[in-house]
Amino acid sequence: MTTFSTISGSALSIARAYAEGAFSARELIEATLARIDAHDAQINAFTAVTRERALAEADALDARRESGQTLPPLAGVPFAAKNLFDIAGVTTIAGSRVLADAPPATADATLVRRLCDQGAIMVGALNMDEFAYGFTTENHHAGPCRNPHDLTRTAGGSSGGSAAAVAAGFVPITLGTDTNGSVRVPASLCGVFGVKPTYGRLSGHGTWPFVASLDHMGAFARSVDDLAAVYDALQCTDPFDPSCAQRGFESANARPGVLRVARLGGYFDEHANDDAREASHVAAEALSATHTVEYPDADAARGAAFLITAAEGGQLHMANLHARYDEREPLSRDRLIAGALLPAAWIVQAQRVRAALRRRVLELFSHYDVLIAPATPVVAPHIGDEFMDVNGERLAVRPNLGLLTQPVSCLGLPVVVAPMRTRNGLPIGVQLIAPPWREELAFEAARRLEAAEVAYCPPPAFDAGAQ
Amino acid sequence: MTTFSTISGSALSIARAYAEGAFSARELIEATLARIDAHDAQINAFTAVTRERALAEADALDARRESGQTLPPLAGVPFAAKNLFDIAGVTTIAGSRVLADAPPATADATLVRRLCDQGAIMVGALNMDEFAYGFTTENHHAGPCRNPHDLTRTAGGSSGGSAAAVAAGFVPITLGTDTNGSVRVPASLCGVFGVKPTYGRLSGHGTWPFVASLDHMGAFARSVDDLAAVYDALQCTDPFDPSCAQRGFESANARPGVLRVARLGGYFDEHANDDAREASHVAAEALSATHTVEYPDADAARGAAFLITAAEGGQLHMANLHARYDEREPLSRDRLIAGALLPAAWIVQAQRVRAALRRRVLELFSHYDVLIAPATPVVAPHIGDEFMDVNGERLAVRPNLGLLTQPVSCLGLPVVVAPMRTRNGLPIGVQLIAPPWREELAFEAARRLEAAEVAYCPPPAFDAGAQ
Repeated sequence: MTTFSTISGSALSIARAYAEGAFSARELIEATLARIDAHDAQINAFTAVTRERALAEADALDARRESGQTLPPLAGVPFAAKNLFDIAGVTTIAGSRVLADAPPATADATLVRRLCDQGAIMVGALNMDEFAYGFTTENHHAGPCRNPHDLTRTAGGSSGGSAAAVAAGFVPITLGTDTNGSVRVPASLCGVFGVKPTYGRLSGHGTWPFVASLDHMGAFARSVDDLAAVYDALQCTDPFDPSCAQRGFESANARPGVLRVARLGGYFDEHANDDAREASHVAAEALSATHTVEYPDADAARGAAFLITAAEGGQLHMANLHARYDEREPLSRDRLIAGALLPAAWIVQAQRVRAALRRRVLELFSHYDVLIAPATPVVAPHIGDEFMDVNGERLAVRPNLGLLTQPVSCLGLPVVVAPMRTRNGLPIGVQLIAPPWREELAFEAARRLEAAEVAYCPPPAFDAGAQ
Repeated sequence: MTTFSTISGSALSIARAYAEGAFSARELIEATLARIDAHDAQINAFTAVTRERALAEADALDARRESGQTLPPLAGVPFAAKNLFDIAGVTTIAGSRVLADAPPATADATLVRRLCDQGAIMVGALNMDEFAYGFTTENHHAGPCRNPHDLTRTAGGSSGGSAAAVAAGFVPITLGTDTNGSVRVPASLCGVFGVKPTYGRLSGHGTWPFVASLDHMGAFARSVDDLAAVYDALQCTDPFDPSCAQRGFESANARPGVLRVARLGGYFDEHANDDAREASHVAAEALSATHTVEYPDADAARGAAFLITAAEGGQLHMANLHARYDEREPLSRDRLIAGALLPAAWIVQAQRVRAALRRRVLELFSHYDVLIAPATPVVAPHIGDEFMDVNGERLAVRPNLGLLTQPVSCLGLPVVVAPMRTRNGLPIGVQLIAPPWREELAFEAARRLEAAEVAYCPPPAFDAGAQ
């Protein structure tokens, strides 16, 4: 019999126990589905549960184990994906009513397929902001995703369902995407680990795009080892994704030696409240980072990301914004129209700013391997909150939860988010930022924070030992 | 004593004769300057003549020869550059009154320096459309550049002075730039060879930019051997130009064997009058090209280039369009303002179209090494003409001389233009288009057309044996 402690354990412990015969995959998946059935009404992380597929995959895996075949490394590990990833047989809604009647996907997205090929079992699709444009997963069609640490609070977004499903202990690993912070913001607010690799590292084939030049694929987990295992499993070249670089496999477990770490000050202190700033200082101390450095013109990088997002997103959606305005998410439809109509010169300038800043910021990495910054300015706001206080300034919640993530993704830099404690008990994440294609440095920093018990993922919120 | 036949000869013959002691560099440069003084009032190719520098360089070269030192390959060859290239001590006006009062350049552009390092002697700066935005070099500040084949006709643009100076026999080689056709259009109308290499091949350091994502450096000459020698001399890596790829040297004289050649039909026939179409057919026959193939959606590529140019150019110039509108070229200032104000979504879509078409067009090169198309829809129009007849359609001259070049440069493909005869005696060029980074294929096609006397550069217009 599988217990709550099994299914809420780590992906690697599940795979190990399964390989040792501690339970069958069917038992595990039935328990997982039961837990989702029992508790997701409160969280609203899932928009579809792939019950039949999961059970069929479980049975096939059990048969494989019985026949004595070698098991792949993630055998038996349940996972789920943000509902903009294609899942064969499920309609890819990307959080939007306008796709609800589209035919089901005929194949899995490349990254879904990668995990299944390694023995992981797909259990469902996860809630998100419509077309990934938002930081709170207050989806007007599916309803808001709730934060497992406090059901009155947002899980963050746009991959809110992905972070919440992991934080709630429904599954140990999930897939998400991050254009301006959509992995890092919910990881921070839900208190889980998240990775947004270098732009172009992971294939986006079979996902609904948002901003082609900023979209990153990513993942969530409750431990660094799990996150590293998922990230390693996802790496592949993909002829179907021309922007996915044809790089060789580079393991998150490469374990570099000395880490030269600095803390980002200036903009990243000014746009963070005490909780966020303190988390950044605690992480810096644990990683022996004595220097505080400036990311030059971070506000300009953020502005550039903001404009490019609105314009590229607006262009992508113009036809259905015209045709089906009333069905579009009220929280983002007007921003997209405004973005499409920005003067072209602004977008050209935004791209110039981005290119110039990239050159300047990359220079920092000749001195440091990892830069630390808070992932969000605040802990999770309450669902429905319009405003938040950030260091004495009253800011709109929805566009500004990404204040600290946008300047980083704008340059395509890889980031691991590590969850930290705050005084009030709610989690907040720190960004561990590495140079392009050096994800292993960010993973190593996260691993050290975890080992020192500075970063930690709190136990799943419901220990509903019902299964 | 240097004669007209010497200074109007090829660059390589000048270098050879100079090395053999047939004349001094001072004699040659004095004769060159005298010829420019005598005839450029008619052509208006030069906006500045660097008399003192040229004579000083000539004297230094003569001293070097006398001392028995090895001479570099272009020793003694006079050259000039479009006035957007920095020439130390000369104000880089880029065709504009608004730069006329700027301080002189403190150093040569990288490509000017490259030629000087190989012994070539800089004699002056050349007329162009303001900020390279135009196809006719009808510059309202400097006056129009006139076509050496018929002084009532345009030399083409924007590198009109560069093509005219070569066609008139003032210098054997010149530098120009090509964003949408600014090397290829004037090469076609003036009947000289021109090269626009792969995007990123040659350094743009020290030049006034126009559209960063479309600007190409290029050159003009009266023979394929000269053009190949210049092109080879210009290749270098340049830390000051981040978009200049760090490629090794790849000679234009690599001489590939079999050439698989096809003619571009469809759009490239429809937007060409009889002269242009016939030139394309004659070139195809000479190169044994029996297939006519379609460049898919060439009109969309042209549209994309048009929009990106207006928007990026508009952004670049916005500040001085605000401040100094009255001093700006009347033929382009309003187009730049309109470009800056285009809806952002149009530019995003233009970039998407460009990326998609690039993938499709590159497929053609799995079947063919070189594609042939006319370089301009018509022979040189008369200066001041507003309209031209293209295949029965009445089109505005100034934006449409680039109809056939824009779809090609939009994808960054390398092109050599070869000058052809028409029935009326005026020249017209054909584009010999190669896959990215395979300039040697286009050079080889041009060399074969030249050897077969199908392509040829008519002798300079004035045989004013005055010198």
